[in-house]
Amino acid sequence: MDKKEVLVREEILGSNRKIAAETRVRLEKEGILTVNFLSSPGAGKTSLLERIAEALKMNHRMAVIEGDIETDLDAERIRKKGVPAWQITTGGACHLEARMVARLIPEIPPETKFLFIENVGNLVCPASYDLGESLRCVLLSLPEGDDKPKKYPKAFATADCLIFTKADLLPVVPFDLKRAEKEALEINPKLRVFLTSALRGAGIAELVRFFIERRVNMIQRHA
Amino acid sequence: MDKKEVLVREEILGSNRKIAAETRVRLEKEGILTVNFLSSPGAGKTSLLERIAEALKMNHRMAVIEGDIETDLDAERIRKKGVPAWQITTGGACHLEARMVARLIPEIPPETKFLFIENVGNLVCPASYDLGESLRCVLLSLPEGDDKPKKYPKAFATADCLIFTKADLLPVVPFDLKRAEKEALEINPKLRVFLTSALRGAGIAELVRFFIERRVNMIQRHA
Repeated sequence: MDKKEVLVREEILGSNRKIAAETRVRLEKEGILTVNFLSSPGAGKTSLLERIAEALKMNHRMAVIEGDIETDLDAERIRKKGVPAWQITTGGACHLEARMVARLIPEIPPETKFLFIENVGNLVCPASYDLGESLRCVLLSLPEGDDKPKKYPKAFATADCLIFTKADLLPVVPFDLKRAEKEALEINPKLRVFLTSALRGAGIAELVRFFIERRVNMIQRHA
Repeated sequence: MDKKEVLVREEILGSNRKIAAETRVRLEKEGILTVNFLSSPGAGKTSLLERIAEALKMNHRMAVIEGDIETDLDAERIRKKGVPAWQITTGGACHLEARMVARLIPEIPPETKFLFIENVGNLVCPASYDLGESLRCVLLSLPEGDDKPKKYPKAFATADCLIFTKADLLPVVPFDLKRAEKEALEINPKLRVFLTSALRGAGIAELVRFFIERRVNMIQRHA
């Protein structure tokens, strides 16, 4: 990057951080735990959200913001689960930014307890943009390979939890779960690790319990 | 994006296009067909290149440029196949640029006929950067899902061929091959489509034949 590019980028990131910090305070004070999902395209973010909706929505109102370059296919899938969802299409941009999320806050129905944000499918750029979330989760699907934490370290370094997805494929893809977990924890020892299969419903209850616990902690922190 | 950001970006892309155009002429006149591989992280670019090396290197010298954010794991894998390989680690940047490739041209051994470039794993940003390639291939692995062409159209719109990878997983993942192919061809009717499995070696011979044909056409065009 040349000098001018670096300066413009720093300005953008600075302004993004400010909006994100305001968003976080505002949402947390309203009792909303916001979770930002990051992953490669096709790691299964929407399928995981469909399962979370099934497990969570009976007892806790939730809402979803879907980020995509084009199409509103994902928001449609979430709405079919009876959950309010907004699609942000970035029209080419490779990540969501805090202002895109902030703009949607007035639309969130009262009594919402969880707001999930599905970022644009990209394991690189979204890691640099705080959206005002309380919790960041990086998804790694088994077919992507166990070398990904080392090759894309920033997404793993900035996340609070690592969710392995498509666990049902473990018998048929070359993936060393211990290696991936070890290398991710070397980058970020604080990561909470989950193993899930949206197709089979495995690991979802544990993940949802974790979100509920985190929300309780958040409310106690603001009390 | 704000106005300043747009201007800086246009300047960068303009300068990139110029270097790419010079690179293309230079490499093509030396009889080198350069192929730029684009995909999500973990779609199987390196595994496909290992198979291509096995099929190609007996009769045609080839070389590989590996792009990654961090680590030189991929170049190491290619060198084990007896093929010269250079690793570019971008240190955070989400795509390769033409100048990174241009800088390596003097290193390419004489008589090299094919130069493969493995871009950073990212289905978004690399699509905007011409590297001076003669041919661009987008890889889509079956576990990523059949909705990806519509959701990430630029990579498919700017490619010359679409390579489905991990075809061995077709029986165990929900993927409608006809839908993915149809929607990709709607975006770009000129796409040549290949179905491959690096694990089983399927479809590699056909792909390699296509590269050899394209190189013959290229040489005739410059004769």
